[in-house]
Amino acid sequence: MFYRVNMATLAVSKDDGPQYQGLGGRALSSRIVSAEVDPAAHPLGAANKLVFVTGLLSGTGAPNGGRMSLGAKSPLTGTIKESNVGGPMSTKLGRLGIRGIIVEGLPNKDVPYVLKVTAAGIAIEEAPGLKGLDIYDTAAALQKQYGAKAAVGCIGTAGENKMAQACVGFTDMEGAPTRQAGRGGLGAVMGSKGLKAIVVDDARGRPVSFADEAAFRAGAKKLSGALLAHPVTSQGLPTYGTDVLANILSEAGGLPTRNFSSGRFEGANNIGGETLHATAMERGGKTGHGCSPGCIIRCSNIYKDKKGDVLTGGFEYESCWSLGADLGIDNLDDIALMNRLCDDYGVDTIETGVALGVAMEAGVAKFGDSKAAIELIKEIGKATPLGRILGSGAEVTGKAFGITRVPTVKGQAIPAYDPRAVKGVGVTYATTPMGADHTAGYSVTANILSVGGKVDPLKPEGQVDLSRNLQIATAFLDSTGLCLFVAFAVLDIPEALEGIIEMCNARFGWQKTADDYLEMGKQVLRDERAFNAGAGIGQGDDDLPEFFRKEQLPPHNVVFDIPKSELDKVFNF
Amino acid sequence: MFYRVNMATLAVSKDDGPQYQGLGGRALSSRIVSAEVDPAAHPLGAANKLVFVTGLLSGTGAPNGGRMSLGAKSPLTGTIKESNVGGPMSTKLGRLGIRGIIVEGLPNKDVPYVLKVTAAGIAIEEAPGLKGLDIYDTAAALQKQYGAKAAVGCIGTAGENKMAQACVGFTDMEGAPTRQAGRGGLGAVMGSKGLKAIVVDDARGRPVSFADEAAFRAGAKKLSGALLAHPVTSQGLPTYGTDVLANILSEAGGLPTRNFSSGRFEGANNIGGETLHATAMERGGKTGHGCSPGCIIRCSNIYKDKKGDVLTGGFEYESCWSLGADLGIDNLDDIALMNRLCDDYGVDTIETGVALGVAMEAGVAKFGDSKAAIELIKEIGKATPLGRILGSGAEVTGKAFGITRVPTVKGQAIPAYDPRAVKGVGVTYATTPMGADHTAGYSVTANILSVGGKVDPLKPEGQVDLSRNLQIATAFLDSTGLCLFVAFAVLDIPEALEGIIEMCNARFGWQKTADDYLEMGKQVLRDERAFNAGAGIGQGDDDLPEFFRKEQLPPHNVVFDIPKSELDKVFNF
Repeated sequence: MFYRVNMATLAVSKDDGPQYQGLGGRALSSRIVSAEVDPAAHPLGAANKLVFVTGLLSGTGAPNGGRMSLGAKSPLTGTIKESNVGGPMSTKLGRLGIRGIIVEGLPNKDVPYVLKVTAAGIAIEEAPGLKGLDIYDTAAALQKQYGAKAAVGCIGTAGENKMAQACVGFTDMEGAPTRQAGRGGLGAVMGSKGLKAIVVDDARGRPVSFADEAAFRAGAKKLSGALLAHPVTSQGLPTYGTDVLANILSEAGGLPTRNFSSGRFEGANNIGGETLHATAMERGGKTGHGCSPGCIIRCSNIYKDKKGDVLTGGFEYESCWSLGADLGIDNLDDIALMNRLCDDYGVDTIETGVALGVAMEAGVAKFGDSKAAIELIKEIGKATPLGRILGSGAEVTGKAFGITRVPTVKGQAIPAYDPRAVKGVGVTYATTPMGADHTAGYSVTANILSVGGKVDPLKPEGQVDLSRNLQIATAFLDSTGLCLFVAFAVLDIPEALEGIIEMCNARFGWQKTADDYLEMGKQVLRDERAFNAGAGIGQGDDDLPEFFRKEQLPPHNVVFDIPKSELDKVFNF
Repeated sequence: MFYRVNMATLAVSKDDGPQYQGLGGRALSSRIVSAEVDPAAHPLGAANKLVFVTGLLSGTGAPNGGRMSLGAKSPLTGTIKESNVGGPMSTKLGRLGIRGIIVEGLPNKDVPYVLKVTAAGIAIEEAPGLKGLDIYDTAAALQKQYGAKAAVGCIGTAGENKMAQACVGFTDMEGAPTRQAGRGGLGAVMGSKGLKAIVVDDARGRPVSFADEAAFRAGAKKLSGALLAHPVTSQGLPTYGTDVLANILSEAGGLPTRNFSSGRFEGANNIGGETLHATAMERGGKTGHGCSPGCIIRCSNIYKDKKGDVLTGGFEYESCWSLGADLGIDNLDDIALMNRLCDDYGVDTIETGVALGVAMEAGVAKFGDSKAAIELIKEIGKATPLGRILGSGAEVTGKAFGITRVPTVKGQAIPAYDPRAVKGVGVTYATTPMGADHTAGYSVTANILSVGGKVDPLKPEGQVDLSRNLQIATAFLDSTGLCLFVAFAVLDIPEALEGIIEMCNARFGWQKTADDYLEMGKQVLRDERAFNAGAGIGQGDDDLPEFFRKEQLPPHNVVFDIPKSELDKVFNF
């Protein structure tokens, strides 16, 4: 069942979406956007649509099946955008039988609206009291009003101010808004539609039905067995969280430091997962925290300050890097505060950190000055002109300050793996329809982690094939509603993919093969690239910024040396 | 003769540029940039080049033959960019036998450099005293140092601060820096190269040689006769200047008002050429002022304030519009002050005005508040964060403030003709390789002025053919060094084009036909489009912003309704 919510008329309608049968997650989101949004539409205008969709396996109880996809045309990149997020909302939507909510139009009244989603349908409610509230306060107010069990997704002031890199914050299992649909500015699209929050209460929801429940359970068991067997998903991530990568990447010479001027950070250990784990434990925080129902990896965490008060949660490698190493900062408490501020104002930590790195290169503040960095983030909260520059992302920041070393692709900041030293993920940054995005084809697996084989990260050979295969597989995995981290198991343990296929088939009574699902992944990429072409973003935009090809990255003194003509072979299917 | 100036090594070399034979002006500039600059280069990086070139007829004394072309990859648009400008410099370069100066590399030292160009060659001189000076002070200081007859081209603080819409200011016949290579941010490229100014002294220069001087003189006579016969070039422009268009366009419903929300401005007459003329005369200013040697149109002016002190010069329709009607401002003295501030800081008046209009729509100031507008421009001079937003142009301003009505194409602000009510120039905005630029194919001629025939401005029919033909012809005219305003005569009086062809042929001993010269124009467009494609800017980017297609423009209540598929036929040659 699909709901359409028209913010201009405040009308809600529902239908079965026959044209979207057989799709979920990113496949569904990208299909809706490419079918229904004019690629020439302004991202913040009436013709853009913001979609919230569930995955193929949402609500089934599949292991790590708690991801929800948001989609729209991005105000940050101008491309199509899918941003997925954990927390309990997709599970609740699945139990309500809702496959998608399509938010259309622009409101006529300047008041924050809340979509209340229950078994009775969707109500659009005015919430003037939420205007100007940050995300933590918004979530708390809504849970007070709608019950502690309601899942909340909402924007902060950055989204209300339509900042191009605004995110949407989602509550986790305990009701704290520690999860973000972070990338691509979907919070600004939500803000443009006057939508402050979506609240999902699945009381009187029902378990999803299965074409073959026994086969589903057998498939689920295969996947969970693989996740519990693989060292990354059973040991590294549960213990240290994603931030386990900080020391690994610094050691590998691929941790972008001080606006991508070095691949090794002398303070890596101070901001790494080992330190984060020890500090969290010492202060009564938590690692091994699951962000969504059915999670058996549990890579999330709760981080407390020195006094023992919760400071932030879902404190990820990407944030520890972007607000840490990329700024030359190694004070984990200061980084945690910055993470909290970003989560609270509602901006993407990756984009914010990279924008700050660019601003520091311009001399706006000194690398390493965490107090200055905190103040810069507060400018975003205050929506000062400087805050609006930073809130518009790294590319605008670079343009405003006349800086040449601006690590973005298609207007989106490059994440925590320097593409010169982790060339496979460089191919993904350059070519994914999403703009620079590590999750779209996480070649770090074979480049650095020796998962799914081994491809030398410093050499150009094999990277295009690696990225292509991962981009296709990821586009499928992102369509299931499974957490991308199941990919570690999928790449090394055959039963993992078997289990996923069996679950999908058993859920719907399909007889699809692995090839069928890979074809689904390919079709996602085709849909997205067709949309982008209509928006004027084509193969000519599939490249990294010049400096990655010209400036050597210490300590390996490597450049990105995969020819453009090779990058153009990624989508040769 | 070509000079190459390497700002990294401070070396100067010269050669005959055999690969660039037969080219001048835009054809030469665009060929050099497309041949020598990697389209993937960052516009402010070492791999970009800034070229100053003369036209085919520069230094010959051809009527209105005083234009000089600047070229580079644009920091504003990311496209190739040619921006041409009046003043005496190209004539002086022609007399020195210099066809082009190619500035390469980035300096190693943070000091303003001056290129001193004389018959003895080019010297690179350090000029620490010029750091942070505005353009009027810079020009005055350089003329004090190098003599009052030296032609100066220089940047202000905006260029030094590498603002993406910074212009390069050039001195006029009296030595005042009233002429701008305004569009596309070439001042920022100049700033990135540490180049504060170029000074040309043609003492001991020699008249250019002719293959057939008598034939040249005959051709020149044909063109001057046509210019003196055509009512636009012999009456309208000399008397009222370009600002004669304000009332005409408002009457036609195509004068963009208050950020392109109406095509008619109730204050049009207060900012129009008739008022400008009367005010200038009353205060002892001047209209009918020629900006370059050999100008017989003389559309420029000198505008004094109420006390009788010179406030600004080269006060054009575009500026009276962008800083006037587009902001809802009809106080000509305030607009003149804004024009002076823009010229002095060194920013493009079109881009600045349109950026201010977008900012006003965002609520940064109120439409009609000229005092606030003046303060906003001063922010650019101070390089505050708000000034950096505005100095980055209208597109960045729109993004920073989350505004959907942002009148830009390929990142450059749309000039003073609303494309809904002057559809032919809308086709040019959408498709020219330059980003929105009226001069690239000035369909206003047949749409509004009944020059070169008549094509109904409000209807879609015929506009694509009109724009195509003008874009080709303009690319040729921009290569001669002639002022584009000769086109009025060319379109109506056969002798004008004959004279131009005869002059070019007689200068070089060529036997080229009109078709040959049109082929030159076509090749310019091919060169430019090939460069843009390499920079990721292709046919998919050839369109107007969504709101022009959706929002009706009063008073005619028209939208831009030329299908994208028709726009894609502009370059079908």
